[in-house]
Amino acid sequence: MAARGQVITCKAAVAWEPNKPLVIEEVQVAPPEAGEVRVKILFAALCHTDAYTWSGKDPEGLFPCILGHEAAGIVESVGEGVTEVQPGDHVIPCYQAECKECKFCKSGKTNLCGKVRVATGAGVMLSDRKSRFSINGKSIYHFMGTSTFSQYTVVHDVSVAKIDPKAPLEKVCLLGCGVPTGLGAVWNTAKVEPGSIVAIFGLGSVGLAVAEGAKTAGASRVIGIDIDSTKFDIAKNFGVTEFINPKDHEKPIQQVIVDMTDGGVDYSFECIGNVSVMRAALECCHKGWGTSVIVGVAASGQEISTRPFQLVTGRVWKGTAFGGFKSRTQVPWLVDKYMKKEIKVDEYITHNLTLADINKAFDLMHEGVCLRVVLNMHV
Amino acid sequence: MAARGQVITCKAAVAWEPNKPLVIEEVQVAPPEAGEVRVKILFAALCHTDAYTWSGKDPEGLFPCILGHEAAGIVESVGEGVTEVQPGDHVIPCYQAECKECKFCKSGKTNLCGKVRVATGAGVMLSDRKSRFSINGKSIYHFMGTSTFSQYTVVHDVSVAKIDPKAPLEKVCLLGCGVPTGLGAVWNTAKVEPGSIVAIFGLGSVGLAVAEGAKTAGASRVIGIDIDSTKFDIAKNFGVTEFINPKDHEKPIQQVIVDMTDGGVDYSFECIGNVSVMRAALECCHKGWGTSVIVGVAASGQEISTRPFQLVTGRVWKGTAFGGFKSRTQVPWLVDKYMKKEIKVDEYITHNLTLADINKAFDLMHEGVCLRVVLNMHV
Repeated sequence: MAARGQVITCKAAVAWEPNKPLVIEEVQVAPPEAGEVRVKILFAALCHTDAYTWSGKDPEGLFPCILGHEAAGIVESVGEGVTEVQPGDHVIPCYQAECKECKFCKSGKTNLCGKVRVATGAGVMLSDRKSRFSINGKSIYHFMGTSTFSQYTVVHDVSVAKIDPKAPLEKVCLLGCGVPTGLGAVWNTAKVEPGSIVAIFGLGSVGLAVAEGAKTAGASRVIGIDIDSTKFDIAKNFGVTEFINPKDHEKPIQQVIVDMTDGGVDYSFECIGNVSVMRAALECCHKGWGTSVIVGVAASGQEISTRPFQLVTGRVWKGTAFGGFKSRTQVPWLVDKYMKKEIKVDEYITHNLTLADINKAFDLMHEGVCLRVVLNMHV
Repeated sequence: MAARGQVITCKAAVAWEPNKPLVIEEVQVAPPEAGEVRVKILFAALCHTDAYTWSGKDPEGLFPCILGHEAAGIVESVGEGVTEVQPGDHVIPCYQAECKECKFCKSGKTNLCGKVRVATGAGVMLSDRKSRFSINGKSIYHFMGTSTFSQYTVVHDVSVAKIDPKAPLEKVCLLGCGVPTGLGAVWNTAKVEPGSIVAIFGLGSVGLAVAEGAKTAGASRVIGIDIDSTKFDIAKNFGVTEFINPKDHEKPIQQVIVDMTDGGVDYSFECIGNVSVMRAALECCHKGWGTSVIVGVAASGQEISTRPFQLVTGRVWKGTAFGGFKSRTQVPWLVDKYMKKEIKVDEYITHNLTLADINKAFDLMHEGVCLRVVLNMHV
């Protein structure tokens, strides 16, 4: 650990500008300042949110930056005052911080800690509003407070969850985003009860995690909706009991679902990020109590709409971020559940590549032929 | 009670066509069929929903009809099989039925009983899909299953709440709609906790009932928003602690409220029926947990919209009908609360008129110079 307190030069995938291939660069990673943690990232997975910012459609996207927010690694060094992790600890960086002290953390009502948001939203660290990444003196922005497409990254101490060192990092890296988002949407945000009828729009990794969450919550029917019928076979393994392809129907999909469920579903989840689908997800809910949860991230500027009568007659519209999980407290708990084989993780990983292959990995994601691609960051 | 089993001829205000003055007519009211109750209406109040249907903007409005849905009276006779009320019982007709047997009533999740809706929505009675009102053989439609602007009306037995005979009917008639809607929006739908910050858009009767509900729930701040500043004086008596007139601000009203509440309110209520205000009510809610309840009824075809980010970051959008109260079970409980002076009712009544003055009463409502107008139906 000779690097402690010194700059580390390592490889990272840099997004120099929107929509141009990522470039593997030698990057200088400054040592952690007070309240910061430098993490050696061992495995990183790709998520659609990375692609969204990379595409240039995210108005808050800053370039050049180092993307990535779903990963696992080992603490290399810590800054002054950091007490909850130490070098050698196995960790998962958390784009949703948990300081346990702010208005949000203390509310008992939300996981949306506000402590470092002003900095992470601006691509810098909180203490000095500067980046820890540079290339020959040129500063490179952080992304979501995690920037896990680098062999080393610096995160705030409130943004790192210490996990069981026996957990395989090449698997549990997925517990940094997609899987908790889906499980938590069901368990924390919707609070699905046994016997419920559930509809899931979009059967990617997050939608499948919703299905698994619904199954473990005791849902009686889990209806998967996707325009790619080949997804049904895999989806069955995650708990989907029925499949609908909107292309097979002339009627609006919400009407199809209302008709097949005697009035609508108890809970629906939008896992795509399409505002029209968000409307369908709300309107396929049962009058009187149906609750629809927006999980997908829509493109900037787009709006959802419906007739207010939908809500006045008892439907509830809500959303979720990181599945409502308190990151530092509950990511370790999810890792433990995985170790006890109570939740799936391995099953979402369809491809294993290396950092050098990151552009190919994004191609796989865009082609829709994968669930999660995990990059080995040090091969 | 010689009329039992016979047609009663009495006075009623008939809406012959949209937007034309109501006409006081001699109407024939048929005796109640099985499962029906004929009620002598003693006092009836006016509500904006009556005016909405009367205006012709309600696509489900049927003419000619007898409007009215907020009233109190005495059971005149009952049809076969009616066991829960008998002649002489003091009652409040309930436009929201409660059968205690349907999927909705049994769900434990909603007050939206479905038993008679198909008939009440069509302006007729369930058993034979016919009206009990006629004028010289010409059928007149029922309205909301209540039609209380008639000296006698026929309602389904699931749509009538038996109340304490000691309660003054000229007051508790208000417990048929507006007051429960406001109180219940707070107590049942939002479940406001002590210490909460609440915003109320629109300070008519329903908005004031929301204020009273918020006050009794222990809200720390109750912010009233209305474009008529003269309403603040009265609103203080109902629990409003701060007043905002959007006309006094250049910034969007949601931003004004966010700024004055360190991030937004915990609960907001839209009591107008304006879709733009519904959006403001959602967007003035605090990130992470703020909940907005739509209470007002928007005009047909209008839609609400917002960025999905508002929900993904923890705001919840819902609505309420009759404040979530189970009508037959809870209206008597509200009457008892009034008798124990635990809720206001008298304070909402600003005018007392007679059935003959009904058009003048609607004028008062449209001019915004009243809260509730109560009609004595037999003077």
